Amino acid sequence: MAAPGTAGFSRRRRATFAVRQGGSLLSVNGGSVAACQSSDTREQGAESPGKKLGAPEAAQLKGKSEKQKRRNDKPSDMLSCHRTQESLLSSASGYNNYRGVLNWCVVMLILSNARLFLENLLRHGILVDPIQVLSLFLKNPYSWPAACLVIVSNLFILVALYTERQLSKGSFGEHVGFVVHCINLTVMLTFPVAVILTVPSVTQDDVFCMFLVGGAFALGIYTILFLKLYSYRDVNMWCRDLSSAKAKKLSRSLSCPSGFSGDNLKVCYPGNLTLKDMYYFAFAPTLCYELNFPRSPKIRMSFLIRRLLEMLFFTQLLVALTQQWMVPIIQSSMKPLEDMDLSRMMERLLRLAVPNHLLWLMFFYWFFHSSLNFSAELLRFGDRQFYKDWWNAESVTYFWQNWNIPVHKWCLRHFYKPLLKKGFSKMVSQSAVFFLSAFFHEYLVSVPLRMFRLWAFMGMMAQLPLAWFVGKFLHGNYGNAAVWMSLIIGQPFAVLMYVHDYYVLHHRLDTD
Amino acid sequence: MAAPGTAGFSRRRRATFAVRQGGSLLSVNGGSVAACQSSDTREQGAESPGKKLGAPEAAQLKGKSEKQKRRNDKPSDMLSCHRTQESLLSSASGYNNYRGVLNWCVVMLILSNARLFLENLLRHGILVDPIQVLSLFLKNPYSWPAACLVIVSNLFILVALYTERQLSKGSFGEHVGFVVHCINLTVMLTFPVAVILTVPSVTQDDVFCMFLVGGAFALGIYTILFLKLYSYRDVNMWCRDLSSAKAKKLSRSLSCPSGFSGDNLKVCYPGNLTLKDMYYFAFAPTLCYELNFPRSPKIRMSFLIRRLLEMLFFTQLLVALTQQWMVPIIQSSMKPLEDMDLSRMMERLLRLAVPNHLLWLMFFYWFFHSSLNFSAELLRFGDRQFYKDWWNAESVTYFWQNWNIPVHKWCLRHFYKPLLKKGFSKMVSQSAVFFLSAFFHEYLVSVPLRMFRLWAFMGMMAQLPLAWFVGKFLHGNYGNAAVWMSLIIGQPFAVLMYVHDYYVLHHRLDTD
Repeated sequence: MAAPGTAGFSRRRRATFAVRQGGSLLSVNGGSVAACQSSDTREQGAESPGKKLGAPEAAQLKGKSEKQKRRNDKPSDMLSCHRTQESLLSSASGYNNYRGVLNWCVVMLILSNARLFLENLLRHGILVDPIQVLSLFLKNPYSWPAACLVIVSNLFILVALYTERQLSKGSFGEHVGFVVHCINLTVMLTFPVAVILTVPSVTQDDVFCMFLVGGAFALGIYTILFLKLYSYRDVNMWCRDLSSAKAKKLSRSLSCPSGFSGDNLKVCYPGNLTLKDMYYFAFAPTLCYELNFPRSPKIRMSFLIRRLLEMLFFTQLLVALTQQWMVPIIQSSMKPLEDMDLSRMMERLLRLAVPNHLLWLMFFYWFFHSSLNFSAELLRFGDRQFYKDWWNAESVTYFWQNWNIPVHKWCLRHFYKPLLKKGFSKMVSQSAVFFLSAFFHEYLVSVPLRMFRLWAFMGMMAQLPLAWFVGKFLHGNYGNAAVWMSLIIGQPFAVLMYVHDYYVLHHRLDTD
Repeated sequence: MAAPGTAGFSRRRRATFAVRQGGSLLSVNGGSVAACQSSDTREQGAESPGKKLGAPEAAQLKGKSEKQKRRNDKPSDMLSCHRTQESLLSSASGYNNYRGVLNWCVVMLILSNARLFLENLLRHGILVDPIQVLSLFLKNPYSWPAACLVIVSNLFILVALYTERQLSKGSFGEHVGFVVHCINLTVMLTFPVAVILTVPSVTQDDVFCMFLVGGAFALGIYTILFLKLYSYRDVNMWCRDLSSAKAKKLSRSLSCPSGFSGDNLKVCYPGNLTLKDMYYFAFAPTLCYELNFPRSPKIRMSFLIRRLLEMLFFTQLLVALTQQWMVPIIQSSMKPLEDMDLSRMMERLLRLAVPNHLLWLMFFYWFFHSSLNFSAELLRFGDRQFYKDWWNAESVTYFWQNWNIPVHKWCLRHFYKPLLKKGFSKMVSQSAVFFLSAFFHEYLVSVPLRMFRLWAFMGMMAQLPLAWFVGKFLHGNYGNAAVWMSLIIGQPFAVLMYVHDYYVLHHRLDTD
């Protein structure tokens, strides 16, 4: 306040209003001030990042402010509904609460895919046809070899078991056993290839497709069995090494350590060489043999049924989406691929990426969660860790270590560690693992396609430099985004390469 | 352990192996066991939801496990690399860390939009043409009325100021002043409409488009001025109410409360009725008049320039995206709209939704952040709260209360609160606010288009039931998603409606 009596009257007169204004505006025009006050109060509420004002809370705050304004009568506050403050988006305001953005992403994704779905329906009509698959299964002669191959595979299991029995009894020497196992395993990998390649090829695409699926399926079974028997042989050998080592010392200890795993006594070395044990391992959802698998106490029926329904549902969905979504895109990309029209190829690649990726995600859930859990529940197999949290992978290495645990375990136990023991460096051993994996990828793709193009092989080997790059330059969410990117783009790229080669090989020849 | 000497020798013999196995497998075959052990340890690491294993951490853990296995020799642990556990995705494992999913969403969005962008380029080539806009501005005679209107608007400002001066001096009675203000404000709303509607219409679409933009711009300016002058009149009236109230009491207080806001003395009632103050308010980025606006101490040059560059950049981007993305879609949807082909209309609607939404987001940033902050910085206007965190809105009400703060403040201060004071219920007052907003939306769209179709009006009024529905049934992220959905779908719907009517009105007539 200025000293009294100094200012001229008119000045003083005007002043009067302003001050009184301060004193008693509320009584005269409380409503309008309340508006400002409350809006102010609400601001403070809304700005604290944690706080979310829904309509109800807003109402509460309004209520509060109504009370506040009664005691709130500093002159400066009267009639004022502005206060110095920064916009939320300008860096000066330390605001950083963007929860809504995730929901935005989800909504946008749903809408844009709904659009694509509708567009696809309008352009192609409904292409889904479950009967087609069955009819092909029935009418086409090339699906039988696959079945036969699967049946024959039992032979190799029995050979492996027989060899181990002989070895345990000592009627085979270690060397003989080793040779027999090697032959057995080698034949396992070569025999199905021979069968598939000797079956005369076909020209109609749909039959070829069935043939492809059948072949890939049979080869898959054989690959899995190969890994299982390799592990079986290793573990039994380790047991023999032990026993022989101890036998020399002639030490005495009188019984088998009787601990309960699940509900049955632990089995000890030669006791595990039974047909039952062998086939349990053959069907168990793991590639690493073990004398006493952890067992779950009982079969949970509801769990079993849920997994079964999931399996059926996703099988249908996978077939339907492939027919409705993948096939049209692939067919439409034949031409650009033949002309090597880069921009269109790029467009097709991106167009293929989305359905391909979704199918891959579904396949992952279908196989690694539904199917493996189903068989595990059925066999009361305890260890359900078929995958880890690869979706949070911030490095390519972490992804490959966690998306397929059975294979990862096998590689670690029967390939990586033994290599380290033999004195190879971590780097070399890791590369060797990728090389092995690359070999099997190529094996599973090229043989059924009858084209040895090495795209799958190179795709896997490309993971090494990629892993190096991501690990070196990208971390946190960027690393994670890079892993997703490589998954979403990498696969359709390989797919298109094979499609292109297949197209050139078959249809170009037809036209010539 | 069973009692010694009871079991047959062979049984005992076998037992020996198993036990010794336990005792000393490590020495014999440490490597392979290490594999299992370490893989176990890694599992525990990887499963704790908080923990993220990159390659390096994994290596560390491996190191740990190498040490662990030295002391770890319970027989049950030997050779075993499985343990009973659930899959992460099955509810039994309380796992819930899906950080990766957000990155997945972002990557998928980027890729699918990159695809759309490429497809658009391949189909339409490059349609962006900044010259077109300028050339239209220059060659087309209908853009001048807009400019003239803007210049004329000063008249209304001056009338309002003059009236207030007269009122403060008492040479106008309250009633006279009220009438003059009413006439002034009414003319402000009707005059531009008259001008725009009397200007002869045009047939070429591009000129019409410019005409549209010009008209909408002029109307926008007038609407803003209307709201500002309404507020100006209210505030001054409140001050007069006060002074008169005090004058009766003849109380004495000798000076104006001299507090600093920014750097200048506070102004008191009649002292604010100057041309300078009036025009400061006219250009200030707010609709609520106040005698002493909070001022920022100085103009931050870097801030000013950044905002300016943003403005220029987004202006270009908005025009470019409209030409390249919106226009083709709108043109392509004319036909389906005319035939009322529902499925295709739906497809076009979804196709339009994405660009429309992105343009809206850019416009929001361009106007509410860049432009308003620019003018505020230039005028050293302190209150930069032009929007709040509407992107986290979990109810429609919250969105409307927070996405456009200047208008929200105005409604609250000069419309909602006065209504409450007059004794209307919250519900009625809120509906009244929506009604007013709906009126102005329609006003800003229909007049330039010269079609009174009430789509915008109904769009706004539809917010009331929507708000009720969302508030009642959807909360948290669902509410937020619903708000986003209504934004993304609602706008293009209205746009298509107007496009359809415009098309039918003009082109159908041409063909007839």
